[in-house]
Amino acid sequence: MQWQDDIIAAQERIIGHIVQTPVLHSRAFGRDIVLKLEQMQHTGSFKTRGAFNTLLAADVPAAGVVAASGGNHGAAVAHAARQLGHRAKIFVPEIAGPAKIGLIKRTGAELTVVPGEYANALELAEREASESGAMQIHAYDAPLTVTGQGTVMLEWERQGLEADTVLIAVGGGGLIAGALAWLGERRKVVAVEPMTSCALHSALEADAPVDVAVSGVAANALGARRIGRICFDLAKGAGIESVLVSDGAIIQAQQALWQAHRQLVEPAGATALAALMCGAYEPEAGERVAILVCGGNIAPDPQIA
Amino acid sequence: MQWQDDIIAAQERIIGHIVQTPVLHSRAFGRDIVLKLEQMQHTGSFKTRGAFNTLLAADVPAAGVVAASGGNHGAAVAHAARQLGHRAKIFVPEIAGPAKIGLIKRTGAELTVVPGEYANALELAEREASESGAMQIHAYDAPLTVTGQGTVMLEWERQGLEADTVLIAVGGGGLIAGALAWLGERRKVVAVEPMTSCALHSALEADAPVDVAVSGVAANALGARRIGRICFDLAKGAGIESVLVSDGAIIQAQQALWQAHRQLVEPAGATALAALMCGAYEPEAGERVAILVCGGNIAPDPQIA
Repeated sequence: MQWQDDIIAAQERIIGHIVQTPVLHSRAFGRDIVLKLEQMQHTGSFKTRGAFNTLLAADVPAAGVVAASGGNHGAAVAHAARQLGHRAKIFVPEIAGPAKIGLIKRTGAELTVVPGEYANALELAEREASESGAMQIHAYDAPLTVTGQGTVMLEWERQGLEADTVLIAVGGGGLIAGALAWLGERRKVVAVEPMTSCALHSALEADAPVDVAVSGVAANALGARRIGRICFDLAKGAGIESVLVSDGAIIQAQQALWQAHRQLVEPAGATALAALMCGAYEPEAGERVAILVCGGNIAPDPQIA
Repeated sequence: MQWQDDIIAAQERIIGHIVQTPVLHSRAFGRDIVLKLEQMQHTGSFKTRGAFNTLLAADVPAAGVVAASGGNHGAAVAHAARQLGHRAKIFVPEIAGPAKIGLIKRTGAELTVVPGEYANALELAEREASESGAMQIHAYDAPLTVTGQGTVMLEWERQGLEADTVLIAVGGGGLIAGALAWLGERRKVVAVEPMTSCALHSALEADAPVDVAVSGVAANALGARRIGRICFDLAKGAGIESVLVSDGAIIQAQQALWQAHRQLVEPAGATALAALMCGAYEPEAGERVAILVCGGNIAPDPQIA
């Protein structure tokens, strides 16, 4: 019950700062499904929930906050820090790409672009935090981050979610950890990862978090080298199903979301749907399936006039 | 009451064929507003409602259906005809653009691209209908089209709409006519048109439908040369407020919808919001404002991988 109480507290803390994102019922993908359109969140992903939750619950030092991120968490922390009047220093890898880097720059946060992948940015962020006294906000493996992300599932249930099964894309595991923390065993949760970036799948096979190589179209959002400990423990405890999808399946799901409903999302945002479309996850007849669309920061930004 | 009964009948007729489009509450545009995201509809606009309503209510001849359109109505008729097993012949002007033309082609409908504007396509469609015996489905000035579009407002109210005022973009007037037919005097309706394509505004000034020149970024969706008679009568009867926006304001609203909520819409889809953002419509303090986002077929289609 502690997790659930903490997620309710998180929801009360952040409610005035976030978008209650809409739910879409669709028959366009082969069966009746519901999709939670969390890419409509401020800064284009669910990460804003964890960022506000952390900044509002903690005593932020004068030196401000530091975050390492594939891009979305950094944009969320930079946005929340600006809204709440804190300094922010963000570290992202080059693969964050122009859309996410532009988002962070526009907040006025101090930005460092690091060669390599997310794990390389994390090393620098940790060093910066210990040297400056700034508070580091972990992108996925911290309780306040996890309970903030857990508000997505709380909100969805309050919107009347009817589903046996929820498909969720996994990178470092903050979002699915929040969902598992909220849901307990009330619904089936399926973890979806790219074949080329599957830290949770590998950890469940090895029965412990292990390092994996990361690459592919969703790497700047889902490319954690090692699954978070909080996520691993919750996922193992719940015995969740873990499935993998190809980059081609992810791109097909992105195209399908645009063609069916004019929703333009980044690869990570289409990864959960990809599992349903390509058959990596095959529901039973009558099983009610829900898809969490988690991010929309496609790169480059679409051209408008 | 006749209009309302007809709209309820339309809703019952089309319910299995359309998307119940989500509603978004936003504080990103300077005040609390609600937006109905009708661009998530099949074929990317509300036009699908009128198309299905007409095809399901009428006796469609073996020669099928004919429609003239700036693009969205044509795509909707082509889609509905295909779903219901009818032949469709669609006439669009060149300015329909590649995204809408591609949409129509993918349905398998017979497509003719006509030099000029919507009115030129309409002439050819009328000739084709009279020669072939096919049924012409008017894009806006026909009762079944209007009652089909009116289901947007019925659906929105059933979703719990709380608004004093609804802002709606106007081209030929099918959508706003449907809204007025459903709402009667229960809420304030504001018509929003581009300065360069304002058939309703000109008609209200002249106290009769008159021909206008059409151009600008939204012309392929809002570029009717003359407002529909049904719309004019309803708008005059309700004494609605009519405001105009510049192309620059429309583009700013498109950009804002992407930046705030990752919604990529065509110029017509952002036209109602533009009126609020640029001050063409200034609500009173405390006035609850709702925005109808009507179309998402931006051209060219966004690039995905």
